[in-house]
Amino acid sequence: MLEDKSPQMTPISAYGEFGLIKHLTENFSFENPSTEISIGDDAAVIDPNGQQVVLTTDVLAEGVHFNLGYVPLKHLGYKAVVVNLSDIAAMNATPTQILVSLAISNRFPVEALEEIYAGIALACKHYKVDLVGGDTTSSTSGLVMSITAVGLENAENIVKRSGAKANDLLVVTGDLGGAYMGLQILEREHSVFLADPNMQPEMEGYDYILERQLKPEARTDIKKTLKELDIKPTSMIDVSDGLSSEILHLSDQSKVGFHLYEEKIPMDSLTIATAEELNLNPVMCALSGGEDYELLFTIAPEDFDKIKNHPDFTIVGHAVDLEQGNFLVARGSNELIPLNAQGWDAFLNK
Amino acid sequence: MLEDKSPQMTPISAYGEFGLIKHLTENFSFENPSTEISIGDDAAVIDPNGQQVVLTTDVLAEGVHFNLGYVPLKHLGYKAVVVNLSDIAAMNATPTQILVSLAISNRFPVEALEEIYAGIALACKHYKVDLVGGDTTSSTSGLVMSITAVGLENAENIVKRSGAKANDLLVVTGDLGGAYMGLQILEREHSVFLADPNMQPEMEGYDYILERQLKPEARTDIKKTLKELDIKPTSMIDVSDGLSSEILHLSDQSKVGFHLYEEKIPMDSLTIATAEELNLNPVMCALSGGEDYELLFTIAPEDFDKIKNHPDFTIVGHAVDLEQGNFLVARGSNELIPLNAQGWDAFLNK
Repeated sequence: MLEDKSPQMTPISAYGEFGLIKHLTENFSFENPSTEISIGDDAAVIDPNGQQVVLTTDVLAEGVHFNLGYVPLKHLGYKAVVVNLSDIAAMNATPTQILVSLAISNRFPVEALEEIYAGIALACKHYKVDLVGGDTTSSTSGLVMSITAVGLENAENIVKRSGAKANDLLVVTGDLGGAYMGLQILEREHSVFLADPNMQPEMEGYDYILERQLKPEARTDIKKTLKELDIKPTSMIDVSDGLSSEILHLSDQSKVGFHLYEEKIPMDSLTIATAEELNLNPVMCALSGGEDYELLFTIAPEDFDKIKNHPDFTIVGHAVDLEQGNFLVARGSNELIPLNAQGWDAFLNK
Repeated sequence: MLEDKSPQMTPISAYGEFGLIKHLTENFSFENPSTEISIGDDAAVIDPNGQQVVLTTDVLAEGVHFNLGYVPLKHLGYKAVVVNLSDIAAMNATPTQILVSLAISNRFPVEALEEIYAGIALACKHYKVDLVGGDTTSSTSGLVMSITAVGLENAENIVKRSGAKANDLLVVTGDLGGAYMGLQILEREHSVFLADPNMQPEMEGYDYILERQLKPEARTDIKKTLKELDIKPTSMIDVSDGLSSEILHLSDQSKVGFHLYEEKIPMDSLTIATAEELNLNPVMCALSGGEDYELLFTIAPEDFDKIKNHPDFTIVGHAVDLEQGNFLVARGSNELIPLNAQGWDAFLNK
């Protein structure tokens, strides 16, 4: 469809750069009092009102992070926002604004950009963040999206990766490995389609893991939950590259090691069943799959009682002295298996 | 050279994503007390200490904004920063931090990325801004750079595009059209080289305009000068797309028209001579050429005496009522020629 030259589609050149940005952003409204000046000036202005400003940026490139053969453009826009808001949530801050940069080939019509912005608008509305700036340009090939997200928070509430101490408990939200299994199903069905375009994709029954891959959510809700429980994590990170890789980041920044208990890793039954269907080890999918956008954090041991039966959280391990290293404690045998950063790597996969 | 598979070059995959960012950014230091947390966490944190936060983002795409056939990578890194700092300067704010996103094909070795980051580092040092975050990923083809710049300023000093009133004076810094003429020379010599790789490029004598194109500077110095002169512009924009296009932006946001005097437009003698050599109208190059990164602003008529003989500034026209429209007043004849947005357009040029 995207390559279709049918006359209903509008070439991007029909608008020009400024007309295009105006057209794509005219229906965005503002929810945050900190948004002072938005699109239409040289820069956006925000008023943090005494709070610290949290900033993160992420790039998604066609053919590397997504395949337009099976990722709808609206989902892509939504997910590009979520990926960044997840980083803001991982600092225990509240996301407030985003800036969107797009480099897009002229093979895409304006309608394709409208779809992407519809997804961005949906994410802005859902997470109550304001689109305050951006840049849209042509590229010689493909689509590259770069989003910068802004969050605000009082200095004393911000949580870094570097505060974990030995004996702290290691906690994760939600369940893991689902997004990766969703990707496997999408790729399998896309291969079938490419081999025979008359074949109908078999997606039925995979809803949960497909949604984990195509429309993930950022855990911006966790900040409020932790506050209600009167817990401030000692360190935190979001799970974008796989549990194993994230644990090693916390280890590196906090100068502690971790013991992760295989039997504690939270996984949905569909994730496990699909992994087995595809002859994959479900635990490896959680450790190395990535894109779950859950939060991984450490808490002081005395906070155990506050969190132990909460449905949003699973205690998966604990911090040890740095010299003890980072290990997976195997189910049953209690064998210690070294944790490797086998998270998804943009360069190695190419 | 970039396509060379010689064994001295290091493939990007040798580092992996995190190792690569660490490697490229390890020699960056910090100059701004507002930089609280930088690269190595989920997000950067800045402390604006009561000031407002100014944010802008710009994308540069290979084959659209630059041609690696004649743009050195180090210059590209420098210019990508400058383009963004220019937007911060146009708000009358002080740039303090940047975030860098890169999507780059695996045909580039690590050494190419090092060159880009050397240019970024040079710009950071020159403008005293801190690199606080970013994302580096592979792309299926080409190089796309997206930079987000952060600036700080007290609310009362920020200058928007929207404050010009009828009778305000229209002022521009520096001279115009040079960057565009530099590009024409680079493209001419590149064509000659492609036709016959043994030909030596004839760049001698074009230094000023080549530098305007390859290593432009952001006018972050103007803020201080204006403060010393006790002038606060009523509106301001940077000249990135050509004088004509920027005047129309000020007109659109301020709801005034402008009369621009052809004979007042400041141009370097080399710019004029080169335009004539290439059979181009020098004034059209200033009006539509773009990439000068000078500042265009309006001041109240009573500020005329403060600015009239200052070497940094040229009064090029004045604001009129919106109904009177936007016109170039022709040299000699005083004929009124409608101003059109013929600034460089990323989509129309493709």
